[in-house]
Amino acid sequence: METMLGVIRSVYELYGFEPLDTPAFEYSDALGKFLPDADRPNEGVFSFQDEDEDWVSLRYDLTAPLARFVAANYDGLPKPYRRYQTGPVWRNEKPGPGRFRQFIQFDADTVGAASMAADAEMCMLAADTLEKLGIPNGGFLIKINNRKILDGMLDGANIPQEKRLTVLRAFDKLDRIGREGVTQLLGKGRKDESGDFTKGADLEPEQIKTLEEKYLNSIVGRPLKDVTEDPEEIERLGNRVRKFGPLDGSRDPNYFVVDNDYTISTLKRLFHGFDLAIKGIEEIDEIQKWCKSSGYDEQKIVVDPSVVRGLEYYTGPVFEAELTFEVKGDDGAPMRFGSVGGGGRYDGLVERFKGVRIPATGFSIGVSRLFAALKALDKLNVKDQRGPAVVMVMDRDRLGDYQRIVKELRGAGVRAELYLGDSGLKAQMKYADKRGAPCVVIQGEEERQRGEAQIKDLIEGRRLSEEIADNAKWREARPAQFSVKTAEIVAAVQGVIARHEA
Amino acid sequence: METMLGVIRSVYELYGFEPLDTPAFEYSDALGKFLPDADRPNEGVFSFQDEDEDWVSLRYDLTAPLARFVAANYDGLPKPYRRYQTGPVWRNEKPGPGRFRQFIQFDADTVGAASMAADAEMCMLAADTLEKLGIPNGGFLIKINNRKILDGMLDGANIPQEKRLTVLRAFDKLDRIGREGVTQLLGKGRKDESGDFTKGADLEPEQIKTLEEKYLNSIVGRPLKDVTEDPEEIERLGNRVRKFGPLDGSRDPNYFVVDNDYTISTLKRLFHGFDLAIKGIEEIDEIQKWCKSSGYDEQKIVVDPSVVRGLEYYTGPVFEAELTFEVKGDDGAPMRFGSVGGGGRYDGLVERFKGVRIPATGFSIGVSRLFAALKALDKLNVKDQRGPAVVMVMDRDRLGDYQRIVKELRGAGVRAELYLGDSGLKAQMKYADKRGAPCVVIQGEEERQRGEAQIKDLIEGRRLSEEIADNAKWREARPAQFSVKTAEIVAAVQGVIARHEA
Repeated sequence: METMLGVIRSVYELYGFEPLDTPAFEYSDALGKFLPDADRPNEGVFSFQDEDEDWVSLRYDLTAPLARFVAANYDGLPKPYRRYQTGPVWRNEKPGPGRFRQFIQFDADTVGAASMAADAEMCMLAADTLEKLGIPNGGFLIKINNRKILDGMLDGANIPQEKRLTVLRAFDKLDRIGREGVTQLLGKGRKDESGDFTKGADLEPEQIKTLEEKYLNSIVGRPLKDVTEDPEEIERLGNRVRKFGPLDGSRDPNYFVVDNDYTISTLKRLFHGFDLAIKGIEEIDEIQKWCKSSGYDEQKIVVDPSVVRGLEYYTGPVFEAELTFEVKGDDGAPMRFGSVGGGGRYDGLVERFKGVRIPATGFSIGVSRLFAALKALDKLNVKDQRGPAVVMVMDRDRLGDYQRIVKELRGAGVRAELYLGDSGLKAQMKYADKRGAPCVVIQGEEERQRGEAQIKDLIEGRRLSEEIADNAKWREARPAQFSVKTAEIVAAVQGVIARHEA
Repeated sequence: METMLGVIRSVYELYGFEPLDTPAFEYSDALGKFLPDADRPNEGVFSFQDEDEDWVSLRYDLTAPLARFVAANYDGLPKPYRRYQTGPVWRNEKPGPGRFRQFIQFDADTVGAASMAADAEMCMLAADTLEKLGIPNGGFLIKINNRKILDGMLDGANIPQEKRLTVLRAFDKLDRIGREGVTQLLGKGRKDESGDFTKGADLEPEQIKTLEEKYLNSIVGRPLKDVTEDPEEIERLGNRVRKFGPLDGSRDPNYFVVDNDYTISTLKRLFHGFDLAIKGIEEIDEIQKWCKSSGYDEQKIVVDPSVVRGLEYYTGPVFEAELTFEVKGDDGAPMRFGSVGGGGRYDGLVERFKGVRIPATGFSIGVSRLFAALKALDKLNVKDQRGPAVVMVMDRDRLGDYQRIVKELRGAGVRAELYLGDSGLKAQMKYADKRGAPCVVIQGEEERQRGEAQIKDLIEGRRLSEEIADNAKWREARPAQFSVKTAEIVAAVQGVIARHEA
């Protein structure tokens, strides 16, 4: 985990972001100003009283504390202010599979930059980070959409303000519940497999139809042949289509993402006359052009109008980092990890604290989820660390000698430890094995008198034990074990480690 | 901060400790089992209810969650289990100078090892960590005591159980309130400067006298001549005395720590007949001998019977890492940072969860405090990171070109960014300055036509601006600014950075 965080940090720093640390909790009235879900003000947040009986809340994300920090320290900050931050955030929800009450985020934000270049940078940052973590090209996509397209559509369909969050949340579930599920959530509501009923937005049939036309039926999840019947266009697009395997059956296997220019022109045609939506389309066009001119084409950064992002404070472009490769799940069935991060522009957030509108955009990685994905991927840059070399205790009266060997190893930069338990040799060997030790150092009375020690190479030993089944033969051969002079212990241990690192 | 944490981590890993991460909160009934202060069960802890209305509490330290984790996962763990952990902990107390509601700890613990070798290792770990962080030899001390000495003394003075915590807390304040203050706290109580009254342990005069004899009057804070009148012994000890400057006037300037063997023999004489205390003295003797045989003498690791450590769960040796150098405080007066960490043996803690007595010992660094000390020290190994190279925006239509320069710099591993704000050149220069940029890259229309760019070395520029006072001269000379071909921008920026790193 630490290695992975280090890689993310190095990319964020390369991009010029500076570290910031804010406390885990904030005063509730400050945090409450922009709780992501306006319709359930205190739900989902852990709140409690401090010694002065003021209410404080554990942070729900890293963006709200940033907005509070910027508002409080605006004058002294460089502008734009570019910071990164990592740490746990908390949600007071029933934990479930993939849903935790505490999880780690890793955010980068640029506050005070209205330029779409800042948003493009977030997308490139996300792509570089995933690449640097060893996710192969084609194994991820950074998807861009714009909240203004959605808002423009909602304007055009005359959806009243109070219903919009429900609509956006319904869209956001498209992946999980499919098109039919979303349509139900736009209407009266939907009963899930467990029998739980989720109340819908209760829109008029006319309104639902407009949303279906503009959003559900046009871009997302449609087979290629439904988008166009022009054979030339199909052939042209066919080469650029990216197919995703079905995730859970709800998504059409022919779901595709075509080239950005094509998506942009389709969107422009579709939303002709929806002014706000057109502005949004132009913004993401600018972003994708920025990215392309820096070498990030739609194989990495792609316009995808299905992206919603749940938080209500977004005001413009939104991003989603999605892993597209399939791995075998615990049940053996293929699965995709899906979203491992996201973000967007939130020009109104700092204003809630400071009264001045300060543009801002950011990107956030869901660290735990990404870590699970990296573990599942085999060719990771993130290696598990090897255990320490263990110096065994053969003779309790000579602990001082053993300790000195440990000290010498550490002095040479070798991870090492003295066995600190009370058990005998067999348990000590088992311990070294469990710790993933590359080798153990053994010096009994006999060896000491000869001025020697035994080094046992556990990695080689494990390999050989699979070859040599006969116990007696094993003892006779004592494979992967050798003698060295006491003065050469450090060099010998370094040799074993180096041999297995190659 | 991150650099510092990385250094600590590297030393802990070198010692063979493995990372562990536990959640920020635990169920209150679990945590409550070993709240440090038994007499105020829920005070000092942030508690709140989760969705199921169960009470949960933010962790007070990293030791309690470790004990809970070990109890829950005992069978699967290597034994001994050696883990390190870093992260915030929380206290529901009124914040004040040097007292925060959230602060970061960095802990190493060995669970399942009864051997004093494990405790000695904690002391050596602490010493190595402080040294690796650049604190010069002689600038810190790891102090050892044993809770058994204190308990044996309290036994001998017939102090009832319910008063012992108050007594220990009084001892722990010796540094701050002086000997007289402690004596008051052993009696009726003490009024501090603000007029607040702290109730004392209300001991009998006889009891106070025993404690004064054994603890206050014997070892701590006495001028050398009071310890012995033997001129030979004074001379012998005089060479090994470490003097501390007075901290706040409450500590005798002649306070000293002599050599460990001398302290041990003095303690043995003093506590003759106090069986438990004698056992404790033998334990710390074993620890200091371990340390000495590995090359850590009393210049680094010293027996100091004044160490208490506030937590009631300690059962044996206790350690305190103290910075001994003086720096100038904010008010210009010399100050010492004092304790930056501590720990000890807590053989009974896991038992509260698991019913089986499992020996354990650990050491914890107070990260924020140590960080402040490292900042105050000038010769730090922990350097502030330099800001990114800033590519300035001369012509908004050419943002794509500027972005490509940034991308090339990053591709070569150079921290770099495009100026993302809306402001003019002067503000951009100011921004670069504020960010600590080593240099800026400037390419206006004129330069572009020549296929060139200007590199302005801000570090050199700052230095020269102190020499050249005349504004007109400055403009003419344009010091620390030079032209390069567009293709050589990356190499030129790397050159500037390298020049200032040397």
